[in-house]
Amino acid sequence: MADRESVSLLVTGAWVVTQGEGREVYAPGAVAVAGERIVTVGPQAEVEARYRGAEVLAYPSGLVMPGLINAHTHAAMSLFRGLADDLPLEEWLQKYLFPAERHLNRDMVYWGTRLGVAEMLLSGTTTFADMYLFAGAVAQAVADTGVRAVVGEVLYDFPSPSYGPVEAGLRLTEELIEQWRDHPRLSVAVKPHAIYTCSPELLVRCGDLAARRGVRLVIHLAETHTEVADCLAKHGATPVGHLHHLGLLCDRLLADHAVVLTEADMDLLAEGGVGVAHCPESNMKLASGMAPVTELLARGVPVGLGTDSCASNNNLDLFQEMDTAAKLQKVRRLDPESLPAPQALDLATRHGARVLGLEGRVGALAPGYLADLIVLDLNRPHLTPLYDPFSHLVYAASGADVQTVVVHGRILVRDRQLLAFDLDETLAKARELARVIKNFGGCWGPP
Amino acid sequence: MADRESVSLLVTGAWVVTQGEGREVYAPGAVAVAGERIVTVGPQAEVEARYRGAEVLAYPSGLVMPGLINAHTHAAMSLFRGLADDLPLEEWLQKYLFPAERHLNRDMVYWGTRLGVAEMLLSGTTTFADMYLFAGAVAQAVADTGVRAVVGEVLYDFPSPSYGPVEAGLRLTEELIEQWRDHPRLSVAVKPHAIYTCSPELLVRCGDLAARRGVRLVIHLAETHTEVADCLAKHGATPVGHLHHLGLLCDRLLADHAVVLTEADMDLLAEGGVGVAHCPESNMKLASGMAPVTELLARGVPVGLGTDSCASNNNLDLFQEMDTAAKLQKVRRLDPESLPAPQALDLATRHGARVLGLEGRVGALAPGYLADLIVLDLNRPHLTPLYDPFSHLVYAASGADVQTVVVHGRILVRDRQLLAFDLDETLAKARELARVIKNFGGCWGPP
Repeated sequence: MADRESVSLLVTGAWVVTQGEGREVYAPGAVAVAGERIVTVGPQAEVEARYRGAEVLAYPSGLVMPGLINAHTHAAMSLFRGLADDLPLEEWLQKYLFPAERHLNRDMVYWGTRLGVAEMLLSGTTTFADMYLFAGAVAQAVADTGVRAVVGEVLYDFPSPSYGPVEAGLRLTEELIEQWRDHPRLSVAVKPHAIYTCSPELLVRCGDLAARRGVRLVIHLAETHTEVADCLAKHGATPVGHLHHLGLLCDRLLADHAVVLTEADMDLLAEGGVGVAHCPESNMKLASGMAPVTELLARGVPVGLGTDSCASNNNLDLFQEMDTAAKLQKVRRLDPESLPAPQALDLATRHGARVLGLEGRVGALAPGYLADLIVLDLNRPHLTPLYDPFSHLVYAASGADVQTVVVHGRILVRDRQLLAFDLDETLAKARELARVIKNFGGCWGPP
Repeated sequence: MADRESVSLLVTGAWVVTQGEGREVYAPGAVAVAGERIVTVGPQAEVEARYRGAEVLAYPSGLVMPGLINAHTHAAMSLFRGLADDLPLEEWLQKYLFPAERHLNRDMVYWGTRLGVAEMLLSGTTTFADMYLFAGAVAQAVADTGVRAVVGEVLYDFPSPSYGPVEAGLRLTEELIEQWRDHPRLSVAVKPHAIYTCSPELLVRCGDLAARRGVRLVIHLAETHTEVADCLAKHGATPVGHLHHLGLLCDRLLADHAVVLTEADMDLLAEGGVGVAHCPESNMKLASGMAPVTELLARGVPVGLGTDSCASNNNLDLFQEMDTAAKLQKVRRLDPESLPAPQALDLATRHGARVLGLEGRVGALAPGYLADLIVLDLNRPHLTPLYDPFSHLVYAASGADVQTVVVHGRILVRDRQLLAFDLDETLAKARELARVIKNFGGCWGPP
């Protein structure tokens, strides 16, 4: 054993679910990590015979898997969770969300994002895509907390409480791209809000900026029947068709929601190599509809999984989201074979990485990948006995089963304790900000 | 303070959500318990000024509420969780479930039920309705574990691995009713499986037995489109119409699932005073459909909430089930105001009690009610800040937030530790039985 190679971290578990090309599962298995990267993944005995970990995380009742990827959220809105529910999307946005957001400031977004990150890490999400105001504060929170993210300032025609006129928003986006270009865990994308809040000119300028800087272009697209009807009336095209006419359908584009689609829309998305972020719980809660995920996957469209914000979900638990995604496709199609468990797990791992431009870096446990991994505690009644790990991960587990979380080779959660930053401070700050938010007056509270 | 009345248990929390007639909420609040019954519920200071608890459970960051009621499950099937998924209902039943159940015995059902009870208690369910084979073993597990339940032997025309011919099943049911008639936490119901597995004669005999003994009559009803089509072809009536012709629609009847209903069916259920157990996650996973819960509630039909078994869910977490129920109605009706959070909470509490014949005894915290209560830990990022407890309970919480559980005045879970019985023994027994189940041969495993 004296000639074993030294690595920084060795993680062992009763099960290792790799989400690699061949969907390899090792029971028991191990992952060897050197610095921020995975060196090897395999049967526990083989890995242990070859590597000695400076630090060892041994979970004989644990399941090791890639950290989950939340392909669409607005993390700071965790501060607004439960302030207004059970309302139509337009009313919810116009009467509650947008007015409240006029009172937002950098401090609120920074602490709201930390709150969201705490929830995500503790429930097994290691990467998220964020679209929000004061994206500089979001980026700072990501840098400070140790999580991985693709962030971006939300852009629209009307003045923003964050940057003011849209010209400033485009400048801010480019500055953020420049500022964080070399950060190991953070990238910045261009994020026009939606086709109904952005002029064709703004959309094209966003597309140009994303292409020029080689970054993702992210937009809420075809979320509701109202959006589609209005777009048809105004532009004579569906939202997807509208972006197609503007020349914006490309493999850099990520379409959030993509609920109300025609067959032609789906073909266009597939031809363009566009990615989709599916947000089933938000789409259900806001009564937007049921996205045709099965049909998109059949066309080769990569579909990631998002929670959307805490204001329309109302949590950031991707385990519950996988469960809902798998079940929603079955009932939508009245076909119990739709979106089986392993495919649902792909949405929150491999596919999530692909739609965020992180393919080959995260979303699987494989040599050379970044060391973003989580461990679930299997020694629980709802996970006992275990016949099929894919079934348990999608249909039985929840984020609360996550025990330990590693991002970029660093242990951020260990045995359910958040090590990355001070949770009590974040919770106290959130409660303090909530008292301010409650006093925004008129714009909040049950109707 | 010397003249305070002595009670056996005093529970205090930052919030007390009563689910009483007026939906009273106290923040902070307290519940005083004497023996198995609630003495009073109110503002913490008032209750503490008047009562002194021999035992005190003080949760300054906790939310106290009634224990949840699972209106339909098959607890012992927790042993089958994840053995076969993503299959059509008929194939799943005929090819996997029924063949496997031919190998069942009393020991498996006893330990499988204990496993299910462990999961239910730890996730905040204090009462459940069970329909299964070897119901005597289910009853024994309920008696031994401290939970509350309505159990019953599943009856059908073909020979049962439990009792043999159906005559023996009816006799067994009556014996069980007699045996447990005075048990404080357990009652026995008559449980014909479904209209497609029970002859009209058997259904009528079941109805007669339930009426004669004054117990519930419970049946899977109108679960799938296939069931309805077959019933129309065979009996010239929908499943609800069929039971109506047999004179079985009454307020003693509980219809599990009730997914595929006509307007006339819903009117018949309402007129008969029939209760419904809604199982949204199972109905989604098996692609049965989306039950018209909003329309049933509008007619005054009491609707409880069930998980169905672990083989079609795959967990027994009623918090997640409330969330799914609320969201599923919204997306089904494309109306975000459908089944708002407080109403969803009613399904798993007040309404659940009503459909199980336990109205006025459990499902709310009120003087004279049985002391079945749970405490959730609010000091978590996904429950911080808190503006509206109903929103958090339905849309943000999960069973893993449950900290402490009291049933019939007895503390069964305290600070997430199961005190009621030996969890490790139950998990070990479940793993041992799983090895046997795997070897049932041919009938199990991925197809």
